[in-house]
Amino acid sequence: MRKEIQPITSCQKPKLTIVKVGGKIVEEEASLQKLLADFASIAGHKVLVHGGGRSATAIASKLGIESVMVNGRRITDAETLKVVTMVYGGLVNKTIVAQLQAIDINALGLTGADMNYMLSEKRPVAEVDYGFVGDVKKVNANLLADLISKDIVPVLAPLTHDKKGNLLNTNADTIAGEAAKALARYFDVTLIYCFEKKGVLRDEHDDDSVIPEINRVLFEQYVTEAIIQGGMIPKLENAFEAINAGVKQVIITKADAIDGKQGTKVV
Amino acid sequence: MRKEIQPITSCQKPKLTIVKVGGKIVEEEASLQKLLADFASIAGHKVLVHGGGRSATAIASKLGIESVMVNGRRITDAETLKVVTMVYGGLVNKTIVAQLQAIDINALGLTGADMNYMLSEKRPVAEVDYGFVGDVKKVNANLLADLISKDIVPVLAPLTHDKKGNLLNTNADTIAGEAAKALARYFDVTLIYCFEKKGVLRDEHDDDSVIPEINRVLFEQYVTEAIIQGGMIPKLENAFEAINAGVKQVIITKADAIDGKQGTKVV
Repeated sequence: MRKEIQPITSCQKPKLTIVKVGGKIVEEEASLQKLLADFASIAGHKVLVHGGGRSATAIASKLGIESVMVNGRRITDAETLKVVTMVYGGLVNKTIVAQLQAIDINALGLTGADMNYMLSEKRPVAEVDYGFVGDVKKVNANLLADLISKDIVPVLAPLTHDKKGNLLNTNADTIAGEAAKALARYFDVTLIYCFEKKGVLRDEHDDDSVIPEINRVLFEQYVTEAIIQGGMIPKLENAFEAINAGVKQVIITKADAIDGKQGTKVV
Repeated sequence: MRKEIQPITSCQKPKLTIVKVGGKIVEEEASLQKLLADFASIAGHKVLVHGGGRSATAIASKLGIESVMVNGRRITDAETLKVVTMVYGGLVNKTIVAQLQAIDINALGLTGADMNYMLSEKRPVAEVDYGFVGDVKKVNANLLADLISKDIVPVLAPLTHDKKGNLLNTNADTIAGEAAKALARYFDVTLIYCFEKKGVLRDEHDDDSVIPEINRVLFEQYVTEAIIQGGMIPKLENAFEAINAGVKQVIITKADAIDGKQGTKVV
């Protein structure tokens, strides 16, 4: 009996889970090991995106460089750029890669300059001069997708480049979102943003008030009602943008729950 | 007229040039740019291997970590390992990658942990405890060769890993030699070692006394006669080992002459 040829639908793209973890969890030995073990147990293709701000601040301080933050973003002068290149691209990234290799995950650490995979432009000076900070302009996902399909697990540092020879400091949430959008052409992408809370909370003082699912209408209503505010607003804006660009689902959750079954699902 | 099918001989492997540059040249802005432009002009596939010891010493010193060298090798305790991971894997490596991208070389910065391409073992403690220093045990060149054939230019930092979660500090000459040997299965490899002199000198006080070509018989004779001594002996031993393992040629030259037409050719 001849098998019927199935039409290729988007459902048949291979699955890819992109996990963004920031802050303390990747910078402390015990929590990092737990996180990497959880990450390793995610089935199918995966990508890890990390931050490293606390380590950058600590190393900068030891080197006598003051860390200046405006709106939660690091002002990145030439000396600070060297520090974040060392810390994000070297110390944090390569430590994660080596530890993933130890648990048989074939990791590859990347900045946006590597294989020219993520291009950005130095942010124009408006009210604030953020210095060597990049706004993402283009993602070349072709080679990245090819490596992922060969079971390589990219570990993405929060650094991009301008193809003029400059590395640029770039927010890890943005890296994760842009990589997810570009890789959605090749994969069925689930994007998981980890942060300190269990998800988007209805009541910021109640850790168990997680909103299980949110759509744009609900989001706008919650913003109007001031249930959602502060740093959660750009995070959710990014999530909706990713969904609109073809990412299958975005989950906002705590780093100890990256199985994608908890947290807030953005639809 | 039908074309005759040519037999595939080793001569028809694609060419690959591996350039190892160390020290000052990659750590000073002006000399780095000149070097990268020269490197970019090498025809065909290529790999760059770099050091970074001076920067590591400088950063370590600023962080209050003393650099201890024994037999020209850095004693790498846990704190020093963090410094070399930052400096070799981050600052030096990613700066080179970004600057190569600016001149249209599709560079990819790697440590041995990335894609598990170079495995080592922590050097056993004998007379000296070198700490987190690795002796190379295995090179997985398959994925690396595949990327090179896609016109990716690997930029190799002097770091390997033990697949137990540890990065290990590894001499850049060794990285270059081991990569060359492993890649010789896929490519016709020319390995170029750059250092401060124009080549292997017959008279160390005469920069123009370069020995144009050397074989093992001549090498042993020169060692007996004390014409070749010190750090040049292991460098040449590495070179002969590479040739024996299938590397087509090894050239020892000055960093401003990486066209392979000058220096000492090891045959």
